[in-house]
Formats: sequence, structure tokens, C-alpha cells
Amino acid sequence: MTLPSLGLYGLGTMGSALALNILDNGYGLHVANRTTSRVPEFVGEAGALAENLTGHESLVAMARAMPAPRAIILMVPAGGAVDSGIAELLEVLGDGDVIIDAGNADFNDTRRRTDEVESSGVAFLGMGVSGGEEGARHGPSIMAGGTESVWAGLREVIEAISAKFEGAPCADRFGPDGAGHFVKTVHNGIEYADMELIAEVYGLMRYGLGKAPAEIGKVFGAWNDGPLKSYLVEISAEVLGAVDRISGGPAVDAIVDRAGQKGTGRWTVIEALRMGQSASAIEAAVAARSWSAEKEVREAGAEILGFGREPLELDAADLEAALLAGRIVAYAQGFRILDAASDEFGWSLDFARIAEVWRAGCIIRSALLDGIAGAFRGDLPMGQLIFAPAFAGMLREAVPAMRRVVAASVAAGHPVPALAAALAFLESMALARGTTDLIQGQRDFFGRHGFDRVDGGAGRHGPWWD
Amino acid sequence: MTLPSLGLYGLGTMGSALALNILDNGYGLHVANRTTSRVPEFVGEAGALAENLTGHESLVAMARAMPAPRAIILMVPAGGAVDSGIAELLEVLGDGDVIIDAGNADFNDTRRRTDEVESSGVAFLGMGVSGGEEGARHGPSIMAGGTESVWAGLREVIEAISAKFEGAPCADRFGPDGAGHFVKTVHNGIEYADMELIAEVYGLMRYGLGKAPAEIGKVFGAWNDGPLKSYLVEISAEVLGAVDRISGGPAVDAIVDRAGQKGTGRWTVIEALRMGQSASAIEAAVAARSWSAEKEVREAGAEILGFGREPLELDAADLEAALLAGRIVAYAQGFRILDAASDEFGWSLDFARIAEVWRAGCIIRSALLDGIAGAFRGDLPMGQLIFAPAFAGMLREAVPAMRRVVAASVAAGHPVPALAAALAFLESMALARGTTDLIQGQRDFFGRHGFDRVDGGAGRHGPWWD
Repeated sequence: MTLPSLGLYGLGTMGSALALNILDNGYGLHVANRTTSRVPEFVGEAGALAENLTGHESLVAMARAMPAPRAIILMVPAGGAVDSGIAELLEVLGDGDVIIDAGNADFNDTRRRTDEVESSGVAFLGMGVSGGEEGARHGPSIMAGGTESVWAGLREVIEAISAKFEGAPCADRFGPDGAGHFVKTVHNGIEYADMELIAEVYGLMRYGLGKAPAEIGKVFGAWNDGPLKSYLVEISAEVLGAVDRISGGPAVDAIVDRAGQKGTGRWTVIEALRMGQSASAIEAAVAARSWSAEKEVREAGAEILGFGREPLELDAADLEAALLAGRIVAYAQGFRILDAASDEFGWSLDFARIAEVWRAGCIIRSALLDGIAGAFRGDLPMGQLIFAPAFAGMLREAVPAMRRVVAASVAAGHPVPALAAALAFLESMALARGTTDLIQGQRDFFGRHGFDRVDGGAGRHGPWWD
Repeated sequence: MTLPSLGLYGLGTMGSALALNILDNGYGLHVANRTTSRVPEFVGEAGALAENLTGHESLVAMARAMPAPRAIILMVPAGGAVDSGIAELLEVLGDGDVIIDAGNADFNDTRRRTDEVESSGVAFLGMGVSGGEEGARHGPSIMAGGTESVWAGLREVIEAISAKFEGAPCADRFGPDGAGHFVKTVHNGIEYADMELIAEVYGLMRYGLGKAPAEIGKVFGAWNDGPLKSYLVEISAEVLGAVDRISGGPAVDAIVDRAGQKGTGRWTVIEALRMGQSASAIEAAVAARSWSAEKEVREAGAEILGFGREPLELDAADLEAALLAGRIVAYAQGFRILDAASDEFGWSLDFARIAEVWRAGCIIRSALLDGIAGAFRGDLPMGQLIFAPAFAGMLREAVPAMRRVVAASVAAGHPVPALAAALAFLESMALARGTTDLIQGQRDFFGRHGFDRVDGGAGRHGPWWD
């Protein structure tokens, strides 16, 4: 198969890093950028790698100059910028060419764009790229969606630039059209949950146990040698250990506690809800970020309500177990959403492959993922990750500790929304009889909705209707 | 203003009840139903009220037979049935006529339908109706959206059939197009949360304190004389006190704990997320229902994970306070969503009027709503209901009890997702400094996202980028 000529449009942080990665792997590359002055600047940054690099005045000029067949990567902000890039390219490209959207697109947009682009004879690949700047530069995790044949034509180069886990490329095509961007969205949802779980545990050590950031960083550092081993725990240790140049104090203390978000966490939860699922740990993380953004409201709340946080007594081992159980729930809820989407869109997603592709290069890479891939290849009762023998065993061990952590935190006024939501999911899924019998009774009482009877029979009514 | 002739299509539980209510108030009414045989049956049920009632063979036949101007209420399942009813009516109706959708429409559909219908010269009113069968029959709470002039033409009859609170009609127009259905959607979201909170407290008394359903029903009955006074607490007492005819045991024990949902709870949470909000207590209630529906998974989970629930020691007064605080959060989060939607759609929603309309006739009517209306008319710091002097006072008193309840429940393995989510919201909104500083640090570390500094300056980076 002839490799197409490669172009990349959008030389921001991620685009520049990905371009250098492509060049590093020996491929020739054409580049362009909306602000044209960035192009010669980037050629300068590329140093020796600039040998195989050709800069252009504009996206259209680049497309025109590239020999067919062409594969052009758009690395621009999700949304309108992608649509206008596509519109410009469709004026130039033709049969055999491919447009690759490597941004964080909403998978619904990717589905629409695939239809639009492919109806004009040009192929489209929706490609989720995770790993931040460092990943993009030296090997990201890549989640693609598109036709088999488009993937076949690009596979060599995509695998070459991707992260490797024990030599195996962390890149794959998971299904048609929006499948890749959907998997990336869920990846980001899991990332939200994991970051919030870590932040909650940080808060307990900081404001409950009274430890300094550097000390807490060391705790995370030590955990990174155990079952919590992961990129996010590793960088949390680094962030907490860092010293602010201006104040000379802990770097984290110089940061306003007002978290930003770009939408992928929220999209994950919305899609989960739309499909009748609930990703409670991810939702809690989205909530925590949006509440944190209401800084002035919280400052007023501290004055008006002033509940206050009390000191805590908690074992470090309990905190470690609680974080591990929370992380397992974050993954498990993510895979439940993938399962629902795979059914809804007929994607036949390969969950084990997804876990494998996440083992290196991406933000949520962790020691758990190899086991998750194994669990999905093995015997998985009711398709639930939390019931896989290895994970059920970890959870049976961790949940008593998680109960202690959440109970103590709640009693002392430390908000732990994600830990609590993750625990409630585990407890709810392990109760053969819950309490929604009363809800069904209420619904029948006020709305004659009917209910199933434990002794058989559906749509029955209570004695209140006799 | 001439009152239009009135028609109603859809003689199911709610439609029949609303039709009898209209007749009871002395208005003439035309009716039709998809299954035609239901029409003579309904005329029979109407008894003496049938004097002013005219049955028709079909929706179109009814519309043709009615003198202009005509107002036709559609009381059919939300979705396609509404669209086909509208399509049929547009063949017959003209200037001065009104189509009223009184079902549980998605407000996005109501916005679209308003545009479609009104572009053909017919008026459209999206009308949320709450109160179940009993409410529809004897006075529901009515939340309308449409133009001022359409509302003016129908106000007399809608107010006549609505519930009354100390003589004042619980019906109003809250804004154009989808405003009424949106308010009804949020009403239902609050209803979901309140029902789940009650079910959780029931579960704690049942499986933690070991009380029988009838005993618990008495506790709810007693609470219904205090600050928790409300329709949902009242009917919970009745449901729990009821005896199953077949088994002779508690009626609630005959019900399978698998809760249904029709979508409005989920829509509320999706809209909240889309607008950057989080309605965590409502989300927890939606989650609890959807997890409860996975009965076979939970049965497997009980075998495989088997965490188990332990006995509890809890004061009834603490449970009462926790439920009260949870309910306040359910309302508060509902009004936060209404606030965001009012901004987004330019509806200028009158929150005090909404609370007033909810004081009687609807499922979430409670002793709190009069105070909520008062709070919105008074001085509301940062626009937050939980900061209103009366509610802040209740919360300062209730939160210590709520902490005790949630902590004890979590420690003993009783899932209380909605109570925990409500508490986490309160705690988070009362913390001037939370823990998302670490999240901002992580985001800057892996994605160079930048953060605000506590000493001023936006988009700064950490020392890890030096």
C-alpha cells in the first residue's frame, strides 16, 4: 500500500509536538497554520528534523502542493475550526485523499463529518490522541474511528508515532466514524474522575491530616510503586513536590482552586445518561470542577454557612485502598458507557483492545490496565469489570477501607463527592434488594404507573387502588 | 376575550382526569381518542358531567366539528404521537386556533414545535401538568410556555382547572415556547431526588434500624406534621402502611425493587450538564433508578462482592434533619438549573412565581415552597437559595445531623447516593478553598493548560515548565 503524503494543519502545543514526532519517525511532512508566521518559527524549532519538512502559506496552499494521495491531519480546536478546515479542504482534495481530525471532537460531530466528507469521495478518520504535549511528541495513545480501508492505509505511520507498551503500539481503529472520538471522550471522562479522586485524597491529607504538600507528594510517590502506579499519581507527586518560584512556598498553594474544563468530561456523562447509564464517579468529578469555578459563591458560602472542616484520623493504607477502589470504579463506569455505545451504534468495540491501547502514552495509563485487558479477554460475569475475579478480589479487600475513609471524611465535613459516588455504585451493585421498591410504590400511588410483583406479574397495582 | 371552544385528545389516565376536571368547572368539552371505543366508554364514566361533553371519531373529526376559535389539548405520550397529532391538526386549524401540548414534552421539542406550528398561523402552548391522576382530576399545578396573547386567551380556563393555594391558582405562564415544559422537567427532576432521598431514609430505618414498613410509615406520618410536610412524605407513609392483599404482608415487600423512569429526570441532569451546572442530588436519583433496573447484575454482585449491610444506630431526629437538608438541596439545585436556562434562553423566569405554582397540586408540593417563594422575593445572597437567611439557618442546624447520618450509613454499607451527593454539594459550596488547585496543577503539568495564581495573573504555568 502506498503511503500517502502527510500534512498537518495547526501548529499549537499539540500540533507542533505531533509534527516533530512524525518527522522523528522519518516521514516527510507538510505543515501550515492559521497564523502564517508560526510556520517559519516552527521550521526553526524543528532543527535537524526540518530536512523532511515543508511549510506552506495556508491550508489550501498546502493541500494543493502535496502529491496525491494526501492525508491531512487537522489539529485545531474542536468545533467550528474543524468544519471550516474541512470545507476548505473539500475544494482541493479528491478520491483517495483522507482528512484526519486529531482534535477532541464530539463524536456526534465526527459521525456527521464522516457522512459529509465521504459523500464527496474524500475519506475521513476521527482520531483521538491522548498524552498531552509529552505524549504527542514522543508517543501518544491513539484511538481511531473510520473505515477499515482508510485505517489500513494509515496504520503504518499511526502505529509508528504511537506509544509502545512492551513493544506493542498503543494505537488502533475501534470502529467506524465516531468510534475513535467516543473512546477518547470516555478516556477523558475516566481522567476527570481519576484526577478528582486524587484531589479528594490530597484534600484529606492536607486539611484532615494536616500534612504539607511536599509530604503528600512523597506519599503519592510511594503509592506509585504499588497498585496505584500511574501517570496521574506520578505527576501529582511532582506537582505537590514543586516549589513556587515567586512565593518560595508549595507551587500548588499558588494556584487558584478554580478548575477549567473543555467539555469531554461533561460529554461523557451526558452520553451515559442519554443511554440510560450513570457514570456517577465521572459526574461527581464534572460537578466538582464546575462548583470549583463558582469561587465567589463558595467564598460567600464559607461566610454564610461556615460548616467547617475538622481534623481527621486516617491510615495511609486506607487512603491508598480507597483511591484504588475509586479508580477501579472510574474505569468500570467508563467501560459500561463504551458497552452501551457499542450496542447503540453497532460498533462491536473490543474492550480488551481499548484497555491495551490505554496502557501507554495516554493520561490514564496505569498498572491496572493490563489486568483490565486480561479481564475482558477472560470470563467476565454479567460483562461487569467489577465482577472479574481479579477486580472483585481487590474490591472485597478495598471496600472496607473505602467505607472508613468516606465515613470519616463525611463526618468531619470534607467533601469527597467522587469517592462517595464510587462507593455508592459499588454498594448498590452488590445489593440484591435495594430500596426502589418504595419508589415504585410511590409512582403507582400518584401516577398508577404499576410495578412488578416479587411473586411474578408485571404492571400490578398496590392496595391503595382497590 | 372570547373563550375558544375546547377539545382534548387522548383519554388515558391523565387525559380522562383532566377532561372531567374541565367539565366539572362548567366548560363544554369535545373529546377524541386514538382507540375510538374509549370515547363512548369515557362518556359513560362522565355521568352527569356528560351533558357538556361531545365525543368524536377522531382528532381530525373533532377539530372539524369544533366552532372556531378552537383550543385543542393533546394529552398523548411525549414524542412521535405529539408530532403526528400536530400534523393532523395543521390540516384543519387556522388563525386564532391553539394547540396545547399538555404531555411531558422535552422542552427542546416544544421549542421546535412552537416554531413549526406558529409559522403556519396556529398558536402553540407547551403546558406542563403535574399532580398525577388525582391532581389532573381535582386541580393540578400547571406550568405553561407560549406567547402572552395565547396565555391571555386561555388563562381563565387554565386557572379554573388548576390547584389553589389559599385561593390563588397554581398555574402560570413562565415564558415563551419551551419555558413551561422546562419548568415541568425540572419539577420532575426535583421529584426524582426527593423520592430517592425518602427511599434512602426508608432503607436506613428498614435495613439499618430493623424497623418494619408499617412502623416506618408511622415515622413518615409524624414527620408530615413538621418541616417535612409534603405530598411525597404523606404518600410514603400510606404506601408503607399498606398491606398486600395476596401475601398479607407489607405492600412494599411485594414490589420488585426495579424502578422505572420516563426520561424527565434524565433530561434535567443532561440540561444541567449542558449548561455547565451539576444537579448532583438529581443525578444520584437518576443513577439509583437505573442501577436498580439492573436487578440481575445486582443479584450477581451480591454473590460475587457480598459487601453486606450492617445494623445502624441513628436518631430519628437526625434522619429527619438529613432528609430536610437533602430536600432543600434538591430544590436549590433545581432552581440553579432554572436560573441557567433563564439566562441561556432569555426567559426571565420568575423563580418566586414558580415556587408559588408548586405550592399545591403538584407532586413536589411541600411546606418548604412558601418559604422558597419568599426567599426569592427577598434578599438572596449570590442568587443562591441555600444562602437565603431562612434556609441557611435550617442548613446550619441540619448539616451536622446529615453528616452523622451519611457517615454512619457509609460506614455500615448502606448506599445513600442522593444524601451523600446533596451533602457534598453543601460542603463544597461552603468551602472558600477546595482541592481543585491540584487538578489545575495536573492540567498544567500534562497539557500546559495554565492556571490563575492566588496573587493575581491568569494563564500562568508551574515551575515544572521552567
